[in-house]
Amino acid sequence: MARIAYVNGRYLPLPAAAIAVEDRGLQFADSVYEVVAIADGRLIDEEPHLDRLDRSLAEIRLDAPLARPALRRVMREVVRRNRIAGGMLYLQITRGRARRDPVFPAQARPTVIMTARRLKPQAPQALAAGIAVQCVPDPRWRRRDIKTVALLPNVLVRNSARAEGFADAWLVDDDGLVTEGTFSNAWIVTRAGEIVTRPRSHDILWGITRRTMLLLAAELGLTLIERPFTVAEAKAAAEAFITGATSYVTPVTRIDDGVLGTGTIGPVTRRLAERYSAYMAART
Amino acid sequence: MARIAYVNGRYLPLPAAAIAVEDRGLQFADSVYEVVAIADGRLIDEEPHLDRLDRSLAEIRLDAPLARPALRRVMREVVRRNRIAGGMLYLQITRGRARRDPVFPAQARPTVIMTARRLKPQAPQALAAGIAVQCVPDPRWRRRDIKTVALLPNVLVRNSARAEGFADAWLVDDDGLVTEGTFSNAWIVTRAGEIVTRPRSHDILWGITRRTMLLLAAELGLTLIERPFTVAEAKAAAEAFITGATSYVTPVTRIDDGVLGTGTIGPVTRRLAERYSAYMAART
Repeated sequence: MARIAYVNGRYLPLPAAAIAVEDRGLQFADSVYEVVAIADGRLIDEEPHLDRLDRSLAEIRLDAPLARPALRRVMREVVRRNRIAGGMLYLQITRGRARRDPVFPAQARPTVIMTARRLKPQAPQALAAGIAVQCVPDPRWRRRDIKTVALLPNVLVRNSARAEGFADAWLVDDDGLVTEGTFSNAWIVTRAGEIVTRPRSHDILWGITRRTMLLLAAELGLTLIERPFTVAEAKAAAEAFITGATSYVTPVTRIDDGVLGTGTIGPVTRRLAERYSAYMAART
Repeated sequence: MARIAYVNGRYLPLPAAAIAVEDRGLQFADSVYEVVAIADGRLIDEEPHLDRLDRSLAEIRLDAPLARPALRRVMREVVRRNRIAGGMLYLQITRGRARRDPVFPAQARPTVIMTARRLKPQAPQALAAGIAVQCVPDPRWRRRDIKTVALLPNVLVRNSARAEGFADAWLVDDDGLVTEGTFSNAWIVTRAGEIVTRPRSHDILWGITRRTMLLLAAELGLTLIERPFTVAEAKAAAEAFITGATSYVTPVTRIDDGVLGTGTIGPVTRRLAERYSAYMAART
């Protein structure tokens, strides 16, 4: 079945879904986006994702082109038409088509795009093995809290890390503190059992899965500390993991050349991953 | 006459020129570009622009989809079909269409887009009056030398400056040194008559007009110094200006609240602007 995309009011076969070459999303990355997980055909954490979308739009001074109920209806329709049980919905809003000029156009109508696709469930072996991350200087701009498509830095870093045998990179600020992964938030579990992740600021994306994990970990009675941590601290941690809308909870079992614990998923990470799975299942 | 765009081998009326919603240029800003001035139907500094394009492509690890002679032919054809005497050519290359994944696709064919349009010549009054710039912290990523479309930071800064009554911003690094304008290089002329601009590094775009101006200023026997300068130094300068492919040489006559000299174009800037005009005329 051909995938179906939504573009500005129309549902089209993906190969026919196109935007103008003078769309500001393409020429200036003047655009924000969201990725929402789908489980059993339902959108996970839909409202917080839409809250964050509103915030991103406000930060780039773009009025929402669709009211939330309309947006929700289109999101559901895209999931339905693509017959997705488990997967992800991608939603992108650009400032629209206009003659190329950095100055915001007076008249342009924003472009709204949605696609969806299936994702395989996390394989138990992959979850157990975890991933290796490489620590590299964070090259990105100063407003990582805005979820924009100006993602070339993230893409380049991810691909460099992969070329060196890592699944991803952890980005490190000028003070030696980890900011986050290229498309995920970064967490460690100290030997004292504290779960540590960087607090919200302009330095990191305010992950929706991050937010949910904080709630779930609190419910489990685990000790949570929102503070920045160094690379050395991460390497000396008992466990580490990343969170993201489509990476869920993924253990990090190697940081640079340092293997964490037994080199497989640790008990706290496992507990959180299971709790998050149960959360997704309960939402559906 | 409808403008004509080139997209992947086809010349199309601009309204029909489109790219896939899963083009990596749109989803990741995984794309580089060039803007080349056109004077009397000829492309100004075409070879240095194509050299820079090659460098940008290499930096993002993307193989050139067209050999230079083919690219040159298309550029000329786009100028011809749009019947541009004076204006600009826009050339963008993306990593192509692929299912959304930060990892470089194995198979994607790069997308090549070209458009062109007329620009009015610089009005003598506007040239004499110059522009006002606002100094703001440089929020961009660390590789401003790569000419990518991840331009949202530049766009936001430009629009904020305009909202506050300035034509543009000058971006300032953590050490208080000016990097450049949002889409131009920054220059000052000291009271001692030295022409100062920041040297090439990852901190600034390696402007082609900047490069040409350095050559022309040297020919004129002017004193050139490539070094960073502070905001205070800029405000105390005798003159200031910006250079860019479509801003040519534009005087900066106010920086924040400080008027430079008489508040109109200074003698060194005028000499350089005239020399650059003559250079463009001689190329055609």
